[in-house]
Amino acid sequence: MDTILRSASREVTIRPDGPTIVIGERINPTGKKRLAASLAARDMRRVQRLALSQVEDGADVLDVNVGAAGIDEVEVLPLAVKAVMEVTDAPLCLDSANAAALRAALEVYPGKALINSVNGEQASMERVLPLVKEYGAAVIALTMDDNGIPATAEERIAIAATIVERAGALGIPPEDVIVDCLALSVCTDGTAGRTTLEAIRGVRERLGVNMTLGASNISFGLPDREAINDIFLAMALAEGVNAPIVNPGQSRKAILISDLLLGKDEFGMRYVRFHRQQARQAAAAE
Amino acid sequence: MDTILRSASREVTIRPDGPTIVIGERINPTGKKRLAASLAARDMRRVQRLALSQVEDGADVLDVNVGAAGIDEVEVLPLAVKAVMEVTDAPLCLDSANAAALRAALEVYPGKALINSVNGEQASMERVLPLVKEYGAAVIALTMDDNGIPATAEERIAIAATIVERAGALGIPPEDVIVDCLALSVCTDGTAGRTTLEAIRGVRERLGVNMTLGASNISFGLPDREAINDIFLAMALAEGVNAPIVNPGQSRKAILISDLLLGKDEFGMRYVRFHRQQARQAAAAE
Repeated sequence: MDTILRSASREVTIRPDGPTIVIGERINPTGKKRLAASLAARDMRRVQRLALSQVEDGADVLDVNVGAAGIDEVEVLPLAVKAVMEVTDAPLCLDSANAAALRAALEVYPGKALINSVNGEQASMERVLPLVKEYGAAVIALTMDDNGIPATAEERIAIAATIVERAGALGIPPEDVIVDCLALSVCTDGTAGRTTLEAIRGVRERLGVNMTLGASNISFGLPDREAINDIFLAMALAEGVNAPIVNPGQSRKAILISDLLLGKDEFGMRYVRFHRQQARQAAAAE
Repeated sequence: MDTILRSASREVTIRPDGPTIVIGERINPTGKKRLAASLAARDMRRVQRLALSQVEDGADVLDVNVGAAGIDEVEVLPLAVKAVMEVTDAPLCLDSANAAALRAALEVYPGKALINSVNGEQASMERVLPLVKEYGAAVIALTMDDNGIPATAEERIAIAATIVERAGALGIPPEDVIVDCLALSVCTDGTAGRTTLEAIRGVRERLGVNMTLGASNISFGLPDREAINDIFLAMALAEGVNAPIVNPGQSRKAILISDLLLGKDEFGMRYVRFHRQQARQAAAAE
């Protein structure tokens, strides 16, 4: 089941057995004061720098989120989308809880976007899925609903199935629904990691759709979060996630190694090229 | 299904849902000229240092292998076993292809040893399994036979099942057979990683026995092997390996993080303690 995303001039395909597609997460003002301030001032240079640096670090798709206090997303999200398109042809993932902002961004986006996100709440499905259909987009489906994030893998798989079904009823094919099985911190609940891995495997086996994951919550409250995130990401990729949302500069090595180990990098060519680049950069920095 | 290993004074239990049991691999002269020379000279100080440093790095069980050109294993393996027992109470894994050497080592070992290894060849089962029974030991079962290492997961699972059955016929319970699904280099065969992971999952689901893995072959011929080994180890632990054979100094962090993510480290206590130790050592080294 292939998900195709497009910018004006470039196409990216997410395939179950294809190389992992990296969605860059860094254009997001949460916890980034200077980015929030520049967005509030309609200054898009910082957004453009983040776009370029993520593409350089191996991002295939860029998430664009401008949600922060004092920012009118309906106005600013399309500005950010246009600014990013000026500097890269990577397809975009339009990230907002505000349907009017999503619509405004979809209006200025010339390709096939990924919308981030819908979830299993009635209100969310009613608000977001018609937009996905109208603009011929794909959508990230979060496995949570009015009751929050379920404690069991079975319930998360059931929510994913419901969203795929509701999308289908509107004429959105299953390949345009990318499921996120969600990760909670193992610090507060030791079973959190295993539950997410089981949900991922269940969605892969039973629904066959492509999957993303924002893995970083898993390490909340723990030291050396990057190391934990990378190991969890590798486990999630082994279970079926194939389009994770990550900081590509941080996670690229773990992703390339995972692809190598999962038979998604013939002769290890991408891994070896990456390793040579790193070695050259290290030598140049000395 | 619990595997219990014992030294004269210490018991280690390998449990499917218990913390990962680390078998230290470093007492092995392959590729270590000075260790080979000291073994040939019956000088056991280097063996003892390797034993102590691995226990310090978190090894629960120590593999003891003295096989190298010019070394009489029947004489030297028991000497090495006695030397290791002088400095640590970790249970031992007696590692030799020579049945007489295994017998000589079992004779001097006072606990319940792990024997490394039997495989699916008729001759191997006939030679090793009676020793396992006679000395009440446990045994590592390699999923290979007269035809080498099978290309498919199904065939490896079938060999594991055969060995468990043959062991059972001699009165060796399944919990005393620890299966190694074997890893080949992904450099020469891109499917090697996935095949091993599928075999691990199949053995866990169908036989339920505990599993070891010597993961390092997976990265043969590739750069930055440690990083590849650690990611593969994490994936293998997620699929069911629970007593890997590793260099504990190298892989302890990946193992502790994996246990944390797989719900085998309540409140992350072992991981956080390890992290603090590392931080203290780094501070002391400055």
